[in-house]
Amino acid sequence: MAMKQVANSAIKAIANSGSSSLLTRQLHASPGSKKIVGVFYKANEYFTKNPNFVGCVEGALGLRQWLESQGHQYIVTDDKEGPDCELEKHIPDLHVLISTPFHPAYVTAERIKKAKNLQLLLTAGIGSDHVDLKAAAEAGLTVAEVTGSNVVSVAEDELMRILILVRNFVPGYHQVITGDWNVAGIAYRAYDLEGKTVGTIGAGRIGKLLLQRLKPFNCNLLYHDRVKIDPELEKQTGAKFEEDLDAMLPKCDIIVINMPLTEKTRGMFDKDRIAKMNKGVLIVNNARGAIMDTQAVADACSSGHIAGYSGDVWYPQPAPKDHPWRYMPNQAMTPHISGTTIDAQLRYAAGVKDMLERYFKGEDFPEQNYIVKAGELAPQYR
Amino acid sequence: MAMKQVANSAIKAIANSGSSSLLTRQLHASPGSKKIVGVFYKANEYFTKNPNFVGCVEGALGLRQWLESQGHQYIVTDDKEGPDCELEKHIPDLHVLISTPFHPAYVTAERIKKAKNLQLLLTAGIGSDHVDLKAAAEAGLTVAEVTGSNVVSVAEDELMRILILVRNFVPGYHQVITGDWNVAGIAYRAYDLEGKTVGTIGAGRIGKLLLQRLKPFNCNLLYHDRVKIDPELEKQTGAKFEEDLDAMLPKCDIIVINMPLTEKTRGMFDKDRIAKMNKGVLIVNNARGAIMDTQAVADACSSGHIAGYSGDVWYPQPAPKDHPWRYMPNQAMTPHISGTTIDAQLRYAAGVKDMLERYFKGEDFPEQNYIVKAGELAPQYR
Repeated sequence: MAMKQVANSAIKAIANSGSSSLLTRQLHASPGSKKIVGVFYKANEYFTKNPNFVGCVEGALGLRQWLESQGHQYIVTDDKEGPDCELEKHIPDLHVLISTPFHPAYVTAERIKKAKNLQLLLTAGIGSDHVDLKAAAEAGLTVAEVTGSNVVSVAEDELMRILILVRNFVPGYHQVITGDWNVAGIAYRAYDLEGKTVGTIGAGRIGKLLLQRLKPFNCNLLYHDRVKIDPELEKQTGAKFEEDLDAMLPKCDIIVINMPLTEKTRGMFDKDRIAKMNKGVLIVNNARGAIMDTQAVADACSSGHIAGYSGDVWYPQPAPKDHPWRYMPNQAMTPHISGTTIDAQLRYAAGVKDMLERYFKGEDFPEQNYIVKAGELAPQYR
Repeated sequence: MAMKQVANSAIKAIANSGSSSLLTRQLHASPGSKKIVGVFYKANEYFTKNPNFVGCVEGALGLRQWLESQGHQYIVTDDKEGPDCELEKHIPDLHVLISTPFHPAYVTAERIKKAKNLQLLLTAGIGSDHVDLKAAAEAGLTVAEVTGSNVVSVAEDELMRILILVRNFVPGYHQVITGDWNVAGIAYRAYDLEGKTVGTIGAGRIGKLLLQRLKPFNCNLLYHDRVKIDPELEKQTGAKFEEDLDAMLPKCDIIVINMPLTEKTRGMFDKDRIAKMNKGVLIVNNARGAIMDTQAVADACSSGHIAGYSGDVWYPQPAPKDHPWRYMPNQAMTPHISGTTIDAQLRYAAGVKDMLERYFKGEDFPEQNYIVKAGELAPQYR
């Protein structure tokens, strides 16, 4: 039903937008052989080091043989920026674009306009904010991700980062590699997690898994979301609902960002909102870099208002060499990695294959995977 | 009863050893004013940064005013090595020595022999292996620690280190600070903890807390100890007992060392035992450095047989600049820090004060605190 779906949504979008160019481009798309482009990070010398390393350009999600044996064309690249990049060359005639949040192909309204054959945008992973979703909806495209494929991976990583900040790991590690030994220089700001107040902003799939993993640490758990979580899970985790975000912020020793990047959440943690947090707050953000005001975070780390910031998400990605978060004090950052463990790669590769299979057969995707369907955005992106 | 206790144990020790010098030195000890020496790490500029930073020389466990107001002499130093160190000067006439595992005052048989007035050795924290316990027992000394004071601190830290190794955090952090961005260089050996097999060697207070914290991560949990844990806890955590250590080792993706350093455990992870572990095993050791064969660990990290090693314990401490663990690949080491968070410091400072109070009043300590009592070693050190 995917083909039908795409056609339906195209027609619906046309009806909504009044445009007629779309129907034309859908009709030009061949129903048989498709041109599929995947944008992934390059592995180079690391590719051969792990037979399960499928999430890179060289691994190509393990789909090449399967796709080519069915007569489809499969182009894979990491070259995604600027007018002369490899991706740009294929924009005019690709049918399907597979990309990941780790090495995001920014699918702008302009690219969508140029992509006359484009029908389907698949995110290998979770979080499709690298796509201009409004433009995709208006163009009648289907956008889908592998919901659930790496929620455990990200939740585990968040708990690691909470502990790294609370326990002040990084300065200790630095001492080791620089030949130093100064327990006091670590201990004066190292704490137990036990007894501290942790608030998650967003208690969707990842936030809930984090709360479950935090439970045995005997913290005070708070969460803010648009809706309350299941009462059973609330009871199981002991997490308390905070309807008013700004009222929750000053209660937290540790704040974890667990919401998608949307027009509403973009830059929402600016200077003013950071000022509402406790002096000495620790922040973990594996959601999206652009939810934060980059400079406001760097300034608050420099002043000590934020006592520690850890996450794997930046804007843009790859983060440039002069990104201020690389140089701010008390950061425990990494490149965008939490959702692309080997386990996660195998899951999202399988999820992409499943959706392509359904797309070729004209079947619907699992409902929770749709981000844009029939011209409508999924609730979390509205 | 502590005074009586000390006297009793002295007499018992004499009876056991046939020595008569002890009784003499006990009689010389004044029952009123005591000379108490504390050996802690120095804080220098870090001391004033946190009002709860009591675990350092400057903080002196917050005991100075209380001790001096009762007429006791309280010497505090970090100078603990060699014949001319500050500690050595006070050995001949101190009554009580307080030390910590983080900056251990090595109390050798020779020092015990010189310490004619010594009655009580208190460990601010857990783990009294820096004391020659056999010599202490023979000399009729009481050795006690603040059992439980930092077990949560250490268990939390172990879980952090498991995640740091499994998820390959350190290379990611290095990329950030060196201006690099190479997701593949991290991802090719980053995994989820979920579904992996974690074995703890030792399931005492810390091991049990670790198992509880691991429970929501959906791992296969194994434990080896001399005795099985409480059936209720076994059921709660799902951890399986492994009677034969060498049979457990090859089953584990991750091995956590959670046992005291004793004559039996010293150097027990040598080349042969490491060879029994899976290629690619990850090891977390916050117990004691000397449980491992230092060079065997470094060699196995270099060969890749050990894929990651993290811990905060070394031998000796402070670790010298040329300690091989500083330079081995895939290490995520820190100085000895896990049990000296600010929360832990407050707890073990309170525990030391409680025992000193009991000692002055001649009362017994909480039973679980004794490591050497009346000439006998606690079971875990036998």
